Amino acid sequence: MDFTSERHLDDGVVEREFTLDDVPGILWVPGSSSAPLPLILLGHPGGLRKMYPRLMDRARQCAQLGFATATIELPGSGDRPRLADVEQARADLRQALATGEPVGEIVDRLIFPLVEQAVPEWQAALDALLSLPEVGGPVGYSGGVLAVGIRLAVVEPRIAAAGFFAGSYVPEGMFDEARRITVPLHVLLQWDDEGNDRQHALDLFDAFGSQEKTLQANMGGHTGVPKFAGDDAARFFVRHLSRRPVRS
Amino acid sequence: MDFTSERHLDDGVVEREFTLDDVPGILWVPGSSSAPLPLILLGHPGGLRKMYPRLMDRARQCAQLGFATATIELPGSGDRPRLADVEQARADLRQALATGEPVGEIVDRLIFPLVEQAVPEWQAALDALLSLPEVGGPVGYSGGVLAVGIRLAVVEPRIAAAGFFAGSYVPEGMFDEARRITVPLHVLLQWDDEGNDRQHALDLFDAFGSQEKTLQANMGGHTGVPKFAGDDAARFFVRHLSRRPVRS
Repeated sequence: MDFTSERHLDDGVVEREFTLDDVPGILWVPGSSSAPLPLILLGHPGGLRKMYPRLMDRARQCAQLGFATATIELPGSGDRPRLADVEQARADLRQALATGEPVGEIVDRLIFPLVEQAVPEWQAALDALLSLPEVGGPVGYSGGVLAVGIRLAVVEPRIAAAGFFAGSYVPEGMFDEARRITVPLHVLLQWDDEGNDRQHALDLFDAFGSQEKTLQANMGGHTGVPKFAGDDAARFFVRHLSRRPVRS
Repeated sequence: MDFTSERHLDDGVVEREFTLDDVPGILWVPGSSSAPLPLILLGHPGGLRKMYPRLMDRARQCAQLGFATATIELPGSGDRPRLADVEQARADLRQALATGEPVGEIVDRLIFPLVEQAVPEWQAALDALLSLPEVGGPVGYSGGVLAVGIRLAVVEPRIAAAGFFAGSYVPEGMFDEARRITVPLHVLLQWDDEGNDRQHALDLFDAFGSQEKTLQANMGGHTGVPKFAGDDAARFFVRHLSRRPVRS
């Protein structure tokens, strides 16, 4: 893990960019921290530069609650080399949505390669992050790509809680994985999300195997999550990451 | 409104029982209050004595947040005279549920008389409560009977926000009323509620006309609402009742 920049934000948060095996990422740590902190991995739909303002907002909110946060670029997005098959699938998906054709097979072609590549990258990042003195654990995962978060919650025992956003495609073939998740979940659903099948999201929530899982549905479209819903999601992580012994 | 008892609870909350036109009720006010307080009406499924421990818990939580709370007995429940038609409908409903028969017509016979009688009683209680120096407004409604809360939110302009529990029967004929609700709503749904049709609850949530409405679904049965869900519901009322000018 090579740190390439360090910046002190006005609220004392220290933001450091890094690369790890050519994958760019960002780590945010509250400036006032002394003990190793719990960590929240911030998932996103790809494109660190474009997503930066929203990621930094989430990082700052988490820092106020005593969490370190980190994110890495999604395979094939941002400054990373494009993945030809994924690009093709993305184009096919747009086309299918425009013409109203079924998308199941296209979603498989789009999502599975991302999951297969992204999850080991998140795990490598986790190894490196947990070796830093300022990062301890426990670890949460928050955000998209939903299918990446699902796989990570299944295969990575260091993930102690996950906050998902029911706003991206999950292949039908991953519902069995969803059933194997056991960590506490907090799932946000935008009730009128134009790019998301509500029934599919409800079925997925039903499938999650976790004994503690909360669905919070609010009005509005994909990007209209109300501030109080973000606050509730943050409190979910406080409940599950702040009161436990360090696991890493 | 005749007050019949006054009791100081150990956290300083003052609990006063009252009757209003032969309807028994309870008012809770935080002991430390000086200004007129916002008010939350605590709905319940009937039977004040049986429900008292849970109602007092909710009243105490609300008092800590600066709310006065009040409740009245449901028609035909507790110490009030039984309503023969409602009793018959209740027995028919148990029978239909046991044998798996459709319940729609029975629900109509059970719920509509309760709604018709309870809503004017809540309004009369509201008139009396808002005339007290310690109670100001704005006013919220929290809890069951869900159909009573829906009608009250439609016909009573002093209700500024409502927290519902998607755990009791609402006649199909009341979905049009649900569409006419405009105040902010917070709806709790127990995902595995044995006495509640989940799809019916989701359809009803979809029907509510409010621009701001939140559905929070958690695991477990009818009485298994987790503590954090109660806390989230309380914060909903803080958002909507604590920051507004008094409306009464």
